[in-house]
Amino acid sequence: MSQEIPYKIYLTEEEMPTAWYNMRADMKNKPAPLLNPGTHQPMAAEELYPVFCEELVKQELDDTTKFFEIPEEIRNFYKMYRPSPLVRAYCLEKKLDTPAKIYYKFEGNNTSGSHKLNSAIAQAYYAKKQGLKGVTTETGAGQWGTALSMACSYFDLDCKVYMVKVSYEQKPFRREVMRTYGASVTPSPSETTNVGRKILAAHPGTTGSLGCAISEAVEVAVSTPGYRYVLGSVLNQVLLHQSVIGLETKAALDKIGVKPDMIIGCAGGGSNLGGLIAPFMGEKLRGEADYRIIAVEPASCPSFTRGKYAYDFCDTGMVCPLAKMYTLGSDFIPAPNHAGGLRYHGMSSTLSQLYDDGFMEARSVKQTDVFEAAEMFARVEGILPAPESSHAIRAAIDEAMKCKETGEEKTIVFGLTGTGYFDLVAYEKFHNGEMSDYIPTDEELAASLSKLPKV
Amino acid sequence: MSQEIPYKIYLTEEEMPTAWYNMRADMKNKPAPLLNPGTHQPMAAEELYPVFCEELVKQELDDTTKFFEIPEEIRNFYKMYRPSPLVRAYCLEKKLDTPAKIYYKFEGNNTSGSHKLNSAIAQAYYAKKQGLKGVTTETGAGQWGTALSMACSYFDLDCKVYMVKVSYEQKPFRREVMRTYGASVTPSPSETTNVGRKILAAHPGTTGSLGCAISEAVEVAVSTPGYRYVLGSVLNQVLLHQSVIGLETKAALDKIGVKPDMIIGCAGGGSNLGGLIAPFMGEKLRGEADYRIIAVEPASCPSFTRGKYAYDFCDTGMVCPLAKMYTLGSDFIPAPNHAGGLRYHGMSSTLSQLYDDGFMEARSVKQTDVFEAAEMFARVEGILPAPESSHAIRAAIDEAMKCKETGEEKTIVFGLTGTGYFDLVAYEKFHNGEMSDYIPTDEELAASLSKLPKV
Repeated sequence: MSQEIPYKIYLTEEEMPTAWYNMRADMKNKPAPLLNPGTHQPMAAEELYPVFCEELVKQELDDTTKFFEIPEEIRNFYKMYRPSPLVRAYCLEKKLDTPAKIYYKFEGNNTSGSHKLNSAIAQAYYAKKQGLKGVTTETGAGQWGTALSMACSYFDLDCKVYMVKVSYEQKPFRREVMRTYGASVTPSPSETTNVGRKILAAHPGTTGSLGCAISEAVEVAVSTPGYRYVLGSVLNQVLLHQSVIGLETKAALDKIGVKPDMIIGCAGGGSNLGGLIAPFMGEKLRGEADYRIIAVEPASCPSFTRGKYAYDFCDTGMVCPLAKMYTLGSDFIPAPNHAGGLRYHGMSSTLSQLYDDGFMEARSVKQTDVFEAAEMFARVEGILPAPESSHAIRAAIDEAMKCKETGEEKTIVFGLTGTGYFDLVAYEKFHNGEMSDYIPTDEELAASLSKLPKV
Repeated sequence: MSQEIPYKIYLTEEEMPTAWYNMRADMKNKPAPLLNPGTHQPMAAEELYPVFCEELVKQELDDTTKFFEIPEEIRNFYKMYRPSPLVRAYCLEKKLDTPAKIYYKFEGNNTSGSHKLNSAIAQAYYAKKQGLKGVTTETGAGQWGTALSMACSYFDLDCKVYMVKVSYEQKPFRREVMRTYGASVTPSPSETTNVGRKILAAHPGTTGSLGCAISEAVEVAVSTPGYRYVLGSVLNQVLLHQSVIGLETKAALDKIGVKPDMIIGCAGGGSNLGGLIAPFMGEKLRGEADYRIIAVEPASCPSFTRGKYAYDFCDTGMVCPLAKMYTLGSDFIPAPNHAGGLRYHGMSSTLSQLYDDGFMEARSVKQTDVFEAAEMFARVEGILPAPESSHAIRAAIDEAMKCKETGEEKTIVFGLTGTGYFDLVAYEKFHNGEMSDYIPTDEELAASLSKLPKV
């Protein structure tokens, strides 16, 4: 391995992207539009304004503008934790004794612990610019809620987070990070909303669900003057903001004259994957270059590999618009996999269309195999990875081992979305041999897929 | 404020230090030697070899060699998480509306979460080079134990950590990080050592103490072939390794043409402070430049500001050599301040001599004031700081506010030693208004100081 390439490739602040890239502009087959859940007609911007910030609605619906300038205020915030390093994994390569060259883009060097901050700060900025008082959101494991709290604190916006009650009680640390940043964190279901009270009356003692928390956050947003609802994944606007990951990655690779053979990302709702691959996919869509692009999802929640490409509800509460996507059915309840950020029944519409058109591959990996890769990576590369990110590590290691068999010197780039400091209960289970692999049966999937809405 | 200086100043890998700097070489009044606790004679190298690695003993005793080359293997490890950024705190300056220019050197961007890794990797390297099988150590809150586990994993050394039982049980997260890196973590006191069994027999149900954990770790090191004991602070060798912090800081400041007026560091045993100030203190000792150098310690454990400069035991078990230092008495039990890393009764001999000779100032700060500063910093600068590091933040903010009063544009540099991801119980107490300030009474201090050994 050539030591001429440094361990970490940093862009200078001048080399950081000044515009986000909108993959949809280069897609011949555009992602299908969101549909009104009542009329099954495409949602107009006006229908979305009561829920989302206006500028974000425009970004959501725009599939022709190629670049959106990143406002200076957001670029200044990015400078506090970006550019993130592109790391050459010399130690992992040595450990695997592979001829492959492995790079990873590390997004965990910020207090939210993940890439989520890239979109949180953008959404908070547009909310502030619109003159709003605050935003509402839901959070499960807490990565998104933490990122949004940091962003709102920076722009002096009120932030109301509905946190799934079981997480609120069992994961007090993330809750306290959010409180440090001034957010109000309410365990969901709560007495503060109609939908919360209704659920509590029907199911006393329930520990909540993401679907319920979404419903509460949306209710508060639409019923409180000066508030809107924000979301950390799945949406086109989120993928747009997250393109900063891929743009930096490509700029850093160009700087050292390296063209990757494959790009690997973990996939839940698609925020990281869509951001990481954006400029590479752009070249592929325009016929300028070819790359293997690999989405890695948990075997317990395999929307790409075992789901159906169809219109479905985005939330389990079935109040949000319908999106066409690879889905396991909004009724599907993923097993308690420790990669909470990947436990979503559907997938970004944009990525779904690209996958359906054959522009990317997908594979699923088992949880114990993921933690085995995570531990190996931590020991040689130093960074304790998040369970979500470790799905990409697993696939990168598998590909590097194939190179060892064939002798090929392929260049592998993967996204290391975050750190696992708040996931140590999962690591403990792994160390104690108490971790299981959950794989839904064909019957389970058929049952939830049979309830897809008729569109 | 000039935006010409970037938010983050990174050195390139070529600009990273290739040698550690030994402050003692430039001191006219050398730090007093370690004394044999039995004979009260200076410890010879041979007396220390059974406990410590040979090369580290040499570094410990050498007060004339100015530079020690950093071996290439250690420099390669450093490259995985160093150079650490020197950050211009534009957002904090704006929040304070101060003419002061504030910079901080951030050492938290690694899985151990602090600067401790800088010395851990050096100590593990020399242990490996000596052909040892493994090392033993103690850990309280777990920062040092985590760093050492990472370092041992990298060099394939066995790592036995004795963790104070109450922390082992109440802080399972750090324990699991250590296990991820392959360390064996034993709650102390344990049945695995003579001293442990003795203490358990005398005090059944005890939750342990750092003093006891040290005694167990030392016993295992000296009684197990191929093992030595390692320590994460206080010692001269540790300050030597940590000089990488200050050397990088100075190189980055030189790069942007900035000369600081003051350098501020938190002080427990002295590992961070001694490393951060090293090259600046060197210039001061050689009469080449002048800087204000400020040590910040907790009001609950004020060794510099209220202690006595005298020979004392380094451990509460009184088995280690005697060191001349500012001390509160080895019998002093610091109140349960949340900055676990600063709860040490003594202070590095080198720093003690420099303080006694008037080369640096010291001040103590109250815990609630520290957390107030920590929260303000987190909200504007994004990083959630460790309670230890927040002592330096408090002093930096206080100095910046003085500049606001006087209108002086002073340049302040402080050390941000680590992140607070594993300290959220403390943040929670602060948010809930349940945090107290502990300040020892004069009578308490007099009582513990009355038991200093007669030398």
